[in-house]
Amino acid sequence: MICDLFIIGSGPGGYAAALEAVGLGLKVVLAEKNVLGGTCLNVGCIPTKLFLGATAAVDELDAQARLKLATGEVKVDFGALQTRKSKILSATRKGMMVKLQQLGVTLLMGEARLTGPNVALVQADGEQRVEFRHAVLATGGQPLAVPGLEPDGKTILNSDHLLDQGRPPRSLMIIGGGYIGLELGQVFHRLGTSITVIDAAERLAPQEDPEVSVELGKIFRRKGWNILTGTKVRGLSAKEDRAEVTLGSGDLISAEKALVAVGRKPVSDGLGLETAGCRTTAQGFVATDTFLRAAPTVFAVGDVNGRFMLAHAAETQGRYVARLAAGRTRKPFDPGVVPSCIYGSPETMRAGRMAHELKAEGKEALISRFQLVANPIAQAHGATSGFVKIVWSGDTVVGACGVGHGVSHLATLAAVMVREGWTAREVERTVFPHPSVDEALMEALRAERVPA
Amino acid sequence: MICDLFIIGSGPGGYAAALEAVGLGLKVVLAEKNVLGGTCLNVGCIPTKLFLGATAAVDELDAQARLKLATGEVKVDFGALQTRKSKILSATRKGMMVKLQQLGVTLLMGEARLTGPNVALVQADGEQRVEFRHAVLATGGQPLAVPGLEPDGKTILNSDHLLDQGRPPRSLMIIGGGYIGLELGQVFHRLGTSITVIDAAERLAPQEDPEVSVELGKIFRRKGWNILTGTKVRGLSAKEDRAEVTLGSGDLISAEKALVAVGRKPVSDGLGLETAGCRTTAQGFVATDTFLRAAPTVFAVGDVNGRFMLAHAAETQGRYVARLAAGRTRKPFDPGVVPSCIYGSPETMRAGRMAHELKAEGKEALISRFQLVANPIAQAHGATSGFVKIVWSGDTVVGACGVGHGVSHLATLAAVMVREGWTAREVERTVFPHPSVDEALMEALRAERVPA
Repeated sequence: MICDLFIIGSGPGGYAAALEAVGLGLKVVLAEKNVLGGTCLNVGCIPTKLFLGATAAVDELDAQARLKLATGEVKVDFGALQTRKSKILSATRKGMMVKLQQLGVTLLMGEARLTGPNVALVQADGEQRVEFRHAVLATGGQPLAVPGLEPDGKTILNSDHLLDQGRPPRSLMIIGGGYIGLELGQVFHRLGTSITVIDAAERLAPQEDPEVSVELGKIFRRKGWNILTGTKVRGLSAKEDRAEVTLGSGDLISAEKALVAVGRKPVSDGLGLETAGCRTTAQGFVATDTFLRAAPTVFAVGDVNGRFMLAHAAETQGRYVARLAAGRTRKPFDPGVVPSCIYGSPETMRAGRMAHELKAEGKEALISRFQLVANPIAQAHGATSGFVKIVWSGDTVVGACGVGHGVSHLATLAAVMVREGWTAREVERTVFPHPSVDEALMEALRAERVPA
Repeated sequence: MICDLFIIGSGPGGYAAALEAVGLGLKVVLAEKNVLGGTCLNVGCIPTKLFLGATAAVDELDAQARLKLATGEVKVDFGALQTRKSKILSATRKGMMVKLQQLGVTLLMGEARLTGPNVALVQADGEQRVEFRHAVLATGGQPLAVPGLEPDGKTILNSDHLLDQGRPPRSLMIIGGGYIGLELGQVFHRLGTSITVIDAAERLAPQEDPEVSVELGKIFRRKGWNILTGTKVRGLSAKEDRAEVTLGSGDLISAEKALVAVGRKPVSDGLGLETAGCRTTAQGFVATDTFLRAAPTVFAVGDVNGRFMLAHAAETQGRYVARLAAGRTRKPFDPGVVPSCIYGSPETMRAGRMAHELKAEGKEALISRFQLVANPIAQAHGATSGFVKIVWSGDTVVGACGVGHGVSHLATLAAVMVREGWTAREVERTVFPHPSVDEALMEALRAERVPA
């Protein structure tokens, strides 16, 4: 078959590219070797957020119980939750399929491989040959397995495995204190699992502002998590149906299960990249230019290009390459200001530049901040730890971050502020509803600015 | 004593005026006849949101229980919650007092009355005479008592009384389906109270978009509320420790308590307004010009001027008149885009113009919308009823509203979009985090626009 745009992978990047391209009149073929929706829908954002939402009552109750304002018990039926997860994912995939069909995207369910700059083969109902003007690699990522920490899928798990458990383990050791470990740790903590987090780095969530990391550590420790930062893992093995970690110190610790969440790697093998002139980096990411081009006829979007490992960044990139392929833009890709969040209780948010990043570049930065202890909504939910911090370059907002109750809800507005380069004037002109978590952003924006 | 700015009332409007004025170098005297913080802190937004936050687990559990994903019970100790409320309010008032003292605001705890364009008397430690260049009336509002529906404080209550109950009533009839009735109804519903709402209007929350009202009715009915809209109340009385309502139809209904929440009225009596040349409207609001001036030397901000009955609007007005009095601005008051919300589950949000308002003015409006049923966060919380709706004038966003899970978090961003007159271009440039409630706004912005 012949098409304008041939897309490999139906996660957020590939799906967004397909919808945008077909809307612009391109003939689109989309190949998916697994199930529609990619990591995000099937083994990432969506199931994690479903589990966090379904267990929200546990944490809300705990917070009030700590204040001696409430008693009781919330028992989540994890088996039923898994069934609901399957139903929601399946319904969402079906919705995607229907939409693709309605819009006229040709969907090939099978593994795809480039065989030249304008040709690919897809193993779907035998072998299909696809000729294209442009291809989009949107093959995503997968859990990184490092030597010595290989999951066995039974006792030593990656996030895919953990999301598919039939019952919560009594205890879970999480190797890796990044956002995946922290969100899944929260889910299982709420389900009654005892949580240990081990990370060689000195702080949790190393992509966040350092003060955010410190606060996360405090809050999770107060919830009873055992957090071992600055701690190397020398070995990890399954012993008599328990996971056992040998720490750098030689100490042994064990738990019913271990989650290895040390990072993610791109899915870039076996795609025939070389036949189209694509190049990969040492970590296996597909190298792209400022137009997200991996070769004259091939784009790469989302996790596979290693720019941002975020679903919404992949979507933005997918839409962009579709417009580029349709001749609707000739500009280099502008990622905009990409906000990021860690969900749960607490949450984090980040948009723009952080003070420590600017200082590392020798630039001056001012910060202003607000502690959530004085926010009425945080008080109401019995979750007053945390803060919102604004990063200023001179008179202009260049970044914002936060940690605490509900701060993920500040991420989009923070990204808009950074993009528009807000000054005190825009802050003054903005009416924030009262009372709200948003006011924490307002208070931080209005607070005294001090050198970072 | 002599001052530049004499402020009557320490609610959001008066307090904001005091802080802004003293920061601009003015000598400020603030009079408060009751306790610091006004309605918002003491008998309004803050205690209501505290109660909603403290009972959030009940609703989160209910939503999951309806999906058969969780079982259990959450028992809120309402007595303990009242104690915590008193502590938080008292601590907040103390914080306000300390801040006012630190900044050098003179605080007079007593009733104030203007006796001329530049003079007032305050009943504090005897009678204090205050001479001022400008005065700010920030006296706020109070529950409206209409003939036949007067509260007795025991069985027939206003919102002040209800917020001070020692235990939740078994049943509560709410006369008035506006935001006060709906938020308090949710608090007590979560505490186990059986709720009936009676309103003469055809829809709940008449200040909201009509479709929002319809959705609110559906959701609350599904929770088991008895909602009687389009229903007149002919009589209300306490009979044998029960509240009894005679409907327009002649039917009688009764409950342990009744809440009269038919509106609020300004506190404008006994202020000596005439001595300074101020005028009140038929409803008792202090009339103001475009500079929020009630007389050449007197401003009025917040509920007492009747422009917006919202705490954050009062704050904005308070800061503005302080700048005006300090000579920092000469422009008429620009309220900006004032967002508003109803909190709980569901929530509502509104910013800018609504389609029915534009149509009533003979203007054309387009709308685009997104149903929350397809939002992953709403799905996760088992609360998929509701929608987000965007109002367009041509290519430009002029309004937004919504109802459903967590939509209050969209209010500030929606207000910014309206203020900045976003078009498709700004939408395209904005990266919304995934998954998030914010995406519902994005989906609504990107959806097909149809005539309203």
